[in-house]
Amino acid sequence: MDEDTIDDDTIDEPRIGDAFGEIMRAALAELTGRGPRPTIGGTIPRPVIEIVERDDGLINGAPAARYLCGPDEWQPFDRRALDRLDAPTLDVGAGPGRLTLALQERGVPVTALDTSPGALEVAAARGVRRSVCATVAEHAASGAAYDRFALLGNNLGLLGSREAAPGFLAALAAMARPGARIVAQGTDPYGGTDELHLAYHARNRERGRMGGQLRVRVRYRNLATEWFDYLLCTPAELDEVLAPTAWRLESVDDADAPFYVATLVLR
Amino acid sequence: MDEDTIDDDTIDEPRIGDAFGEIMRAALAELTGRGPRPTIGGTIPRPVIEIVERDDGLINGAPAARYLCGPDEWQPFDRRALDRLDAPTLDVGAGPGRLTLALQERGVPVTALDTSPGALEVAAARGVRRSVCATVAEHAASGAAYDRFALLGNNLGLLGSREAAPGFLAALAAMARPGARIVAQGTDPYGGTDELHLAYHARNRERGRMGGQLRVRVRYRNLATEWFDYLLCTPAELDEVLAPTAWRLESVDDADAPFYVATLVLR
Repeated sequence: MDEDTIDDDTIDEPRIGDAFGEIMRAALAELTGRGPRPTIGGTIPRPVIEIVERDDGLINGAPAARYLCGPDEWQPFDRRALDRLDAPTLDVGAGPGRLTLALQERGVPVTALDTSPGALEVAAARGVRRSVCATVAEHAASGAAYDRFALLGNNLGLLGSREAAPGFLAALAAMARPGARIVAQGTDPYGGTDELHLAYHARNRERGRMGGQLRVRVRYRNLATEWFDYLLCTPAELDEVLAPTAWRLESVDDADAPFYVATLVLR
Repeated sequence: MDEDTIDDDTIDEPRIGDAFGEIMRAALAELTGRGPRPTIGGTIPRPVIEIVERDDGLINGAPAARYLCGPDEWQPFDRRALDRLDAPTLDVGAGPGRLTLALQERGVPVTALDTSPGALEVAAARGVRRSVCATVAEHAASGAAYDRFALLGNNLGLLGSREAAPGFLAALAAMARPGARIVAQGTDPYGGTDELHLAYHARNRERGRMGGQLRVRVRYRNLATEWFDYLLCTPAELDEVLAPTAWRLESVDDADAPFYVATLVLR
């Protein structure tokens, strides 16, 4: 008889690994037609999907191709941010290098920084010339210096949380030449009406977190990243987060709200 | 100081609910432009993604729009299966009704059967005239009778497992008029080279399961279905599964291997 009842004891967790990098490898295969990519039944191609799980049980999937597209396909706020990167730049959380490549094309010296080895391999395969696989703190320890720090593609989120942001920003300050700017794209999380997000903001505040402090992990096939914090905040909240740091908010371009591009300068 | 360390105790499980139905509602909104659908930041639309988690930690996402497309966009084996449904049909696992609608269009009497209330609401909104929200066993108890049972869109998988299949097939036999046929689309899972799938087949066999017995759940936003079994098997395995049942394999159309359309007839 069937003793194989369905219970949670027989369900395996994903393995911890470079899920984001594997997504980028597959997205490159989707773009170029070379290398392993998702299929149905091994024959019918299907798009590469990045899956993000949030700590309230929410899960979302979105096509990964956007990580590899050129400036013509970018959102307008991303293109405006690009224009602000007019001096030697560290592309923070560069992923597979869409911004790094655009800056290289413009002749702006640029280094791609990411913690995902897979994403940086894809970046190299696509023509990114300088990349470093490290956290901002690790890279700061190397003595590198820059005039611009780019946090595009919502990467203002890399500030993480009220608690984590000062350390992250101190690492950028340690690499900042005089007159340096951080150009960071963020999203105001509070304008929507989606009740799951509204409940999540309340859940976060009950835990002493900022409302838009997302605790997430990326999944792909049998891999998951560790859980990490990714901060969505308003420009006013950002201003508060910056208070104990070396950086101040110089300007905010919010022409495409809820998305905005914040420019930060050393005090 | 930050006491908010990241550990699994603070991670919530998804809620059990009609995840598949919610995906279909969102897919309809994507198609029609009416109703809530996924966005980035509440403004930029993104495609609806069906996420399926497997019990070995694997996760996959695929666009849901395929559930709503018409026969011109179907795979060729699906169109050939459609031609075999030439008498009053029960569309088993009908979802939002792409097959039911195609049969209605052809003037074939058809009933959509599904356990997802949300999917059947979408089916009704799209013009499906007869639907029943029930399992095959529940529906058989109502005394309904049919000449054809359609299990398209890989729904041979609804046989579930070696252990579950006889009960499922007995329910169909109880609703079968003389000369009835089951037209079921399946997939041979063993032809590929993906090491994760090969390892999964071995893992299943170690547990006494058929190699292609998928144990999965569907997720969408904060919802998950219960875990359920969905059987991928070869025609030869299907033949063995049928041995203790009232049905025998009449023919197999495997012109588009690894996909095939099996026709089953009462012994």
